[in-house]
Amino acid sequence: MSETSSASSPFPPNDGKSEGIDAQDGNSIIPISLNEEISPNLLQKMVHNALVWCSLHGLVVGDKNNQRSGKVPGVGIVHAPIALLPMSFSQSHFRQACELAPIFNELVDRVSLDGNFLQDSLSRTKKVDAFTSRLLDIHSKMLETNKKEEIRLGLHRSDYMLDAQSQDILQIELNTISCSFPGLSCLVSELHRHLLSHYGGDLKLDSTRVPENMASTRYADALAKAWKEYNNARAVIMIVVQTEERNMYDQHWLCSILKEKYPFYLCAKTLAEIATEGKLQPDGTLLINDQLVAVIYFRAGYTPNDYPSELEWSARLLMEQSTAIKCPSISYHLAGTKKIQQELAKPNVLERFLDDNDDVMKIRKCFAGLWSLDDSNIMKDVMESPELFVLKPQREGGGNNIYGDDVKQTLLKLQKEGSEELAAYILMQRIFPTESPAFLVQGGILHEEHVIAELGIYGAYLRNKEKVIVNEQCGYLTRTKVSSSNEGGVVAGFAVLDSVYLT
Amino acid sequence: MSETSSASSPFPPNDGKSEGIDAQDGNSIIPISLNEEISPNLLQKMVHNALVWCSLHGLVVGDKNNQRSGKVPGVGIVHAPIALLPMSFSQSHFRQACELAPIFNELVDRVSLDGNFLQDSLSRTKKVDAFTSRLLDIHSKMLETNKKEEIRLGLHRSDYMLDAQSQDILQIELNTISCSFPGLSCLVSELHRHLLSHYGGDLKLDSTRVPENMASTRYADALAKAWKEYNNARAVIMIVVQTEERNMYDQHWLCSILKEKYPFYLCAKTLAEIATEGKLQPDGTLLINDQLVAVIYFRAGYTPNDYPSELEWSARLLMEQSTAIKCPSISYHLAGTKKIQQELAKPNVLERFLDDNDDVMKIRKCFAGLWSLDDSNIMKDVMESPELFVLKPQREGGGNNIYGDDVKQTLLKLQKEGSEELAAYILMQRIFPTESPAFLVQGGILHEEHVIAELGIYGAYLRNKEKVIVNEQCGYLTRTKVSSSNEGGVVAGFAVLDSVYLT
Repeated sequence: MSETSSASSPFPPNDGKSEGIDAQDGNSIIPISLNEEISPNLLQKMVHNALVWCSLHGLVVGDKNNQRSGKVPGVGIVHAPIALLPMSFSQSHFRQACELAPIFNELVDRVSLDGNFLQDSLSRTKKVDAFTSRLLDIHSKMLETNKKEEIRLGLHRSDYMLDAQSQDILQIELNTISCSFPGLSCLVSELHRHLLSHYGGDLKLDSTRVPENMASTRYADALAKAWKEYNNARAVIMIVVQTEERNMYDQHWLCSILKEKYPFYLCAKTLAEIATEGKLQPDGTLLINDQLVAVIYFRAGYTPNDYPSELEWSARLLMEQSTAIKCPSISYHLAGTKKIQQELAKPNVLERFLDDNDDVMKIRKCFAGLWSLDDSNIMKDVMESPELFVLKPQREGGGNNIYGDDVKQTLLKLQKEGSEELAAYILMQRIFPTESPAFLVQGGILHEEHVIAELGIYGAYLRNKEKVIVNEQCGYLTRTKVSSSNEGGVVAGFAVLDSVYLT
Repeated sequence: MSETSSASSPFPPNDGKSEGIDAQDGNSIIPISLNEEISPNLLQKMVHNALVWCSLHGLVVGDKNNQRSGKVPGVGIVHAPIALLPMSFSQSHFRQACELAPIFNELVDRVSLDGNFLQDSLSRTKKVDAFTSRLLDIHSKMLETNKKEEIRLGLHRSDYMLDAQSQDILQIELNTISCSFPGLSCLVSELHRHLLSHYGGDLKLDSTRVPENMASTRYADALAKAWKEYNNARAVIMIVVQTEERNMYDQHWLCSILKEKYPFYLCAKTLAEIATEGKLQPDGTLLINDQLVAVIYFRAGYTPNDYPSELEWSARLLMEQSTAIKCPSISYHLAGTKKIQQELAKPNVLERFLDDNDDVMKIRKCFAGLWSLDDSNIMKDVMESPELFVLKPQREGGGNNIYGDDVKQTLLKLQKEGSEELAAYILMQRIFPTESPAFLVQGGILHEEHVIAELGIYGAYLRNKEKVIVNEQCGYLTRTKVSSSNEGGVVAGFAVLDSVYLT
């Protein structure tokens, strides 16, 4: 989350994992707009239709103005913040991003198996980032006891931006824990197809150009297949949740699809509840209130805020020690950190994990420039042209990025504090994404804005000891952000949900 | 609406047409309960599941705590107040109520054709009730100009209670304008089937015993068929709406089904908008903003509050004068008043309108005792046993009924004021419905209460000059009310939505 948000923006700051955009911003080419020449009358009708559709079809979130909206379902509901129309992407860029999903799935799996690589790469981060340090401690314990995860389930989302100058799709980050919006993203695609099927004629837009989005169904299928691999008919799928969650309906959609399609039982527990109700059996199985857990799906545990006391850490350790299939395991979680992203971008590192040269090339093509701060060559460049870089803290969540002249000032400050502090950050090439006009609807109000977009591609991966069972691209989500809020180099983590229009 | 509500009740007073129960209450037999012996744990799971289901599937209303919730869709949404389980009715009672629907449809149509009967029956009411008087004025104008409604569309809901002592289904009232909940009632049935399919085993309840509910689809079909009868491809269906409507999602469901199934255009207008935007053409057709109107569906105009100025009355007259198909016409509207209900209950009146003797008998069987206050025989009985009667004001909306000793006091007061004032009321046999325990969920909170239930049966009727096109029962809705709130004879108009479980 951003620590500073633009007061003049009509959009409230984001307050949940991955809801914010880990934005890199700039002013650049204005592309062909979907949104030109729409009459105010048509616009008004479309907004009304969209608001009604959201309300009737569960494209909703908890209203931050209602205190109970994150605690109890059914109260304080408001439509999700949405773009009225899908964001245009070229077929080739969209296909490229989709094709990367199974390769990244494979890459995460391979990296997760190399415990020393994870420990070594994160050794300096460990000293300055308490959260990563705790995760690494759990990881170390697993290495010490030679704990193996034979069935491995990954539900990832890789986020990209289109660099306007190079016209390359560049990866912003790879989320390997608690990817948000698999449920709502499908609804946004459906909403846009609905709107275009009614108003597409007037807009000269074709509803079939909004790609099919199966994120929630495919995620549910992958969870169900993992449960089947665990092979115990009495075992349950446990969802690790936050004590308050305004994005609860996104999760409820996934659970609802699971419940309708599959007979097994689901339970939702907070880390604190798991600590008190969980019990590790001598055979390594995990019981929650005497119920055997087959699969643990994390929708919490990705931020230090989720671990207010040792109780929560003990729950995380307990789960990791168990034979339950963790989505993600501690290794998968660590494999998704920015520092690992940066390590993988170093020459000859991808080759250690991927056998196929084509795959290596495809992945490398989507990497933006990534450096650690002990790289003296790049530091010189940064001091000369800080506007071309982004300084990113290690920790997950996005939004704390540093831009513009602040990059230089921060680096000077960190250098004074010593090299340890530098290890808490990585440096990334600043992507200047294409900016486009958009109609955003939030709190029932329409805003015409210039936005930048981040394309997220959902991936699912499941394997057992013998073979890969699932390795696929599942769906997509575009999140847009008001680009003007980035003036002065401060990026506020706004999240407005959007889909894709293939051009 | 009730003028006094029980402060201790957890349920907010109803504030919309037909949302309240026009309740007649009492303590009587406790029937076989659906709700006994449910463990707190199971109950908690069911409530959570129900709240999630409502949120994802649009079983929602505007939250009265949110000022914008009645004006803008998508904001200030809360789950509809619901009973957790369906209300049990015997198959024979349910079938009986359903079979009455086409007969009442026919009856309303026949009564509507007898302008003198309507005028004569309501002549005394006219003098004391300004609202009915205005409706009658419009009706008179139509009679004077010999205005005919050749295509007639009725979307009615007849409400019943089960009298515990006689075990008879008795009619409370027949709504011929703006029947609420055709949209949400279907969702409540679906919710209950969903809950019983998941938890029915534990509860020993069978989800297939919740009858199919097609109210919204059938209402949409009837509106579409009326549009077709009007026979102008460029004409629209206009919905007359209130300026604020917290029950908007019920209406949106109906409109949404119409839009998906049929190609024509819908518009929603307030009475004030119709007054300024509407124009009667020389050929009698109605234009709204130069758009021809085929069908007018009223979801407003049933209460004096909807006519704050002459503007709104001019809109009502304009519509009535037009060739557009009104649902309802002024005659249909008047045919649904309580005074007409009471007139129809008089000996040999039904026979004037219905040809089939069986139909007459079926209708008569569901009539409670109904009297006007100039009936001196019954007045004597009332003074002796006021607890056996309900005093009902003429005006639509329900909830202002007078019970218990207040009946006597009010009658004495009215008698002093003279016979004119007496004409503003009708007297009805007090029905003592069966009371049963129920789990009610409102504002995300579960309440265990003893409730009484009112069964509403939706009916649709459409005919043209030659023939009847639609005459059917469409669906149903049970509304429950906390019976304890009726202590002291004051009935608050609470509405909790429920479905039916056939026993």
